[in-house]
Amino acid sequence: MAKKDISQAVIQRLPRYYRYLEDLMDQGIERISSSELSKRMKLTASQIRQDLNNFGGFGQQGYGYNIKNLHDEIAKILNIDNEHEMIIVGAGHLGQALANYTNFRKRGFIVKAIFDKDPSIIGNMVGEIQIQSMDKLESVIRENDIKMAAVCIPKGPAIKVVEQLIDAGIVGIWNFAHVDLDVPDNIVIENVHLSESLMRLSYRMGEALED
Amino acid sequence: MAKKDISQAVIQRLPRYYRYLEDLMDQGIERISSSELSKRMKLTASQIRQDLNNFGGFGQQGYGYNIKNLHDEIAKILNIDNEHEMIIVGAGHLGQALANYTNFRKRGFIVKAIFDKDPSIIGNMVGEIQIQSMDKLESVIRENDIKMAAVCIPKGPAIKVVEQLIDAGIVGIWNFAHVDLDVPDNIVIENVHLSESLMRLSYRMGEALED
Repeated sequence: MAKKDISQAVIQRLPRYYRYLEDLMDQGIERISSSELSKRMKLTASQIRQDLNNFGGFGQQGYGYNIKNLHDEIAKILNIDNEHEMIIVGAGHLGQALANYTNFRKRGFIVKAIFDKDPSIIGNMVGEIQIQSMDKLESVIRENDIKMAAVCIPKGPAIKVVEQLIDAGIVGIWNFAHVDLDVPDNIVIENVHLSESLMRLSYRMGEALED
Repeated sequence: MAKKDISQAVIQRLPRYYRYLEDLMDQGIERISSSELSKRMKLTASQIRQDLNNFGGFGQQGYGYNIKNLHDEIAKILNIDNEHEMIIVGAGHLGQALANYTNFRKRGFIVKAIFDKDPSIIGNMVGEIQIQSMDKLESVIRENDIKMAAVCIPKGPAIKVVEQLIDAGIVGIWNFAHVDLDVPDNIVIENVHLSESLMRLSYRMGEALED
């Protein structure tokens, strides 16, 4: 089945399926029934069958899903069946946290370079990567044909830096700056607005404590 | 209007409204029309009027919204009109990044303590807070009657630590561990699954590069 035929709602759920399938593989489990998977994921078995039917006949009555097949198929759809080189802009704690996540590397996201404007940390190592000056940003992107960038700097400078990134050839931006970026249609932004997430938690706690 | 009468869809959008209103206040702007706000937020003016009508008559025809009133009203609904003390479990890069976010403090989220199991960093300072041993976790929560915790440790230990947190009185958990936590109904979890976010970016880049 072509990617285009899969609904956005299913796509939204795929990373979570992928995470569960990965855990099952790590535990050495080869097959799982939709009812067992539904217990683990707290979805109904029929929801799971409906979602996973999008990827062809991997589920067999009384036999269950082949975990590795399903995992590989979802990886293909999520475009993580091959390696992605990325750069990180901003080598503060958050940038360094992202650079050090072994989970990302395991899924084929390779941090190629990390940049900061602070001369006192340029040259320092983050794991095996050296922090480079922002002056090098565009040339590193162009020379390595990098398409993906994580933006871990304050919102003030973020807007200008994102323009530079796009000029140099970046297509996908993982944005941690607290600002909605205004980009051309062909550029993809995935926002992680942590303070909005914290406000949602606060709202729901208010409700929980009222009850 | 009572909180309960506001739809979940509107609640989901409130943190973003709050962020825009805060920016406008920082710029010294006192009033804004729905059409001007719609341009900035890339929502339709009618969507904005519909959303903000939930909070009573702050918008006046030809006069616009009083930004401070609206901001304060949304803060009340989001339960951020008073201070929240929180703790952070895990003083790795991510935990330290959260501890250092000035944005959180500005919104009344006060990091009271940060914990780690690594003896080589216990006693170190993160800003003005000293990293404490995990042995102190429960007593600090109880003595300070803390309700909110950020979990910034790997998924393996996270499950057990979350049980401890709940036993000690935590009600809201900001979960950065790559695991879905199984908690009682009266406990609120807000997940930030960064690797799922990265997979969604990868998926959308795949689509964008195909076109």
